[in-house]
Amino acid sequence: MIKVAVNGYGTIGKRVADAVSCQPDMEIIGVSKTKPGAEAYVAKERGYPLYIADIGKKDAFIKAGLEVAGSVEEMIQKADIVVDATPGGVGEGNKALYEKYQKKAIWEGGEEHELAGFSFNSSCNYDQAIGRQFARVVSCNTTGLCRIIKLIDSVFGVKKVRATMVRRGGDPGDIKRGPIDAIVLNPVTIPSHHGPDVQSVLPHISIVTSAMIVPTTLMHMHFINMELKNPATKEQVIELIKAHSRLGLIEKSTGITSTAELKEFTSDLLRPRGDLWENGIFADSLSVLDGTDLYLFQAIHQEADVVVETVDCIRAMAGDVKTAMESISITNKAVGLTAIR
Amino acid sequence: MIKVAVNGYGTIGKRVADAVSCQPDMEIIGVSKTKPGAEAYVAKERGYPLYIADIGKKDAFIKAGLEVAGSVEEMIQKADIVVDATPGGVGEGNKALYEKYQKKAIWEGGEEHELAGFSFNSSCNYDQAIGRQFARVVSCNTTGLCRIIKLIDSVFGVKKVRATMVRRGGDPGDIKRGPIDAIVLNPVTIPSHHGPDVQSVLPHISIVTSAMIVPTTLMHMHFINMELKNPATKEQVIELIKAHSRLGLIEKSTGITSTAELKEFTSDLLRPRGDLWENGIFADSLSVLDGTDLYLFQAIHQEADVVVETVDCIRAMAGDVKTAMESISITNKAVGLTAIR
Repeated sequence: MIKVAVNGYGTIGKRVADAVSCQPDMEIIGVSKTKPGAEAYVAKERGYPLYIADIGKKDAFIKAGLEVAGSVEEMIQKADIVVDATPGGVGEGNKALYEKYQKKAIWEGGEEHELAGFSFNSSCNYDQAIGRQFARVVSCNTTGLCRIIKLIDSVFGVKKVRATMVRRGGDPGDIKRGPIDAIVLNPVTIPSHHGPDVQSVLPHISIVTSAMIVPTTLMHMHFINMELKNPATKEQVIELIKAHSRLGLIEKSTGITSTAELKEFTSDLLRPRGDLWENGIFADSLSVLDGTDLYLFQAIHQEADVVVETVDCIRAMAGDVKTAMESISITNKAVGLTAIR
Repeated sequence: MIKVAVNGYGTIGKRVADAVSCQPDMEIIGVSKTKPGAEAYVAKERGYPLYIADIGKKDAFIKAGLEVAGSVEEMIQKADIVVDATPGGVGEGNKALYEKYQKKAIWEGGEEHELAGFSFNSSCNYDQAIGRQFARVVSCNTTGLCRIIKLIDSVFGVKKVRATMVRRGGDPGDIKRGPIDAIVLNPVTIPSHHGPDVQSVLPHISIVTSAMIVPTTLMHMHFINMELKNPATKEQVIELIKAHSRLGLIEKSTGITSTAELKEFTSDLLRPRGDLWENGIFADSLSVLDGTDLYLFQAIHQEADVVVETVDCIRAMAGDVKTAMESISITNKAVGLTAIR
């Protein structure tokens, strides 16, 4: 059993903890919080030992009825691998601690590529993660881009990608973020950081990205154009997507045309927290014009798609499972990822 | 003086009435409403004779303190040109009336091209509107696309346009529309109607468009890519935009990165209703990659950009002013359109 600690039990961390705890080859040895609150109660309810960054705050946890197993430093010593899901930019400061105890560590997409020196996506470079000490699972949007670009590139060859990300303003529980009534260019400049970030996983891909933030919480939406090297048909692309377990196909017959209806659907399917771990590709949007000009819309659930990637990354770094296909299959089965159509 | 009637005094109609009434060569002879309400009071306050579609409802207007000048049919008889700004799809039913009295009429972009047989944009085909009986001013988004595409095409040649429209869910006063928390594909299929609509004005342009609706009210946002036939530089494109009075350039130094900040700016400039009649092109977004691959973001104020186009269309159809440049100059001066930078 791979002993996993989750440093930062928030939006991503709590999902990673649940996904890890149902894997046959992994166990959660602890999760960390900086202060008591709803998520700390959930950790207690799940039976995850709770560690805290500042041991001086132990009394506040005790007072709130929350048992404290120890300090984050103690948690790290007990783990084989630490998933650092602390807020973007914070994880960098923890590297020294992981190095001190010679532990493997995974950061999420809020950190820079250079921190880990390796950016991970299950469908693109699983084998390069085998046995590594450090890795970074790319952000939700980059994960969604990498999955579909890699697939299309491997079959038809991709000459150029142009992608526009319409991003949610904040997560559903995040009441402090905006905008309330604006379309915000983030950034104004072209390209957004997503293009270079895709290249941290797929260095040979020519890609230009742009990004906006809008007043919604449920999911991001991507509009992607790929100029192909070789002709494709819509039917061929649909079949490829159907055969890829991390690419979900939203059929026209569902009547789903938006992020909100899609979230309702994954909730009705009783996915934990209504999570969409796959890319949500709209079948009816998929178009190949002039033989080599591919277009599609895909919804990306910002809270969920990196969770299954993180599980695969743990497995690759632990080193026992040698292929992406095998790990993805184990991960999917354990969390209950089956085709949404 | 060109006698103008505005059939449908709503979001667009009330703005057209104000823009017409300040032109040196035009006057408003009447506006129409179907029922009393805030906009009818504004018409009274402005001194526009108020006509009503259903004369049986006259009592309701009288009771509300609103004088009724007569029926819509009577209004049409008094006009040289009718601007039909009734809700999309309704205007079609009025064509017989305009034909009966042999009046010139202009529809807005909510109606089909075929209804008028001619789609208008001041910067693209003013001369083809001269003396016509019927015309359709293309929708706000198509207007915004036509302006910039025509300019770039005329100087560098446009090989292919790919444009994504992130559209506002409803106008600020429209409390019945959504979405509240979703990104809605509208339509799911590629292309959206905007591409073909651009071709109704610029038939030779190869263009693929996509469109989403988001929970905001202030403006649409376009992300546009143009593959050019001949190389361009960012500086050249900026200079061309600066020289075009219907293309506004939002400089980096303003700090504006969103539709909301832009609306605040046009309101501070004391534009009537804070209207942005021009395309709001973000200077910092303008990029030319690989010499011939142009990218930009532009904000399009759905309530405003077609208003000045409609005024030009009236002038072209009346026939006295023979060039777009002359009409645009008169229109801009009269409404107070000066460079926003």
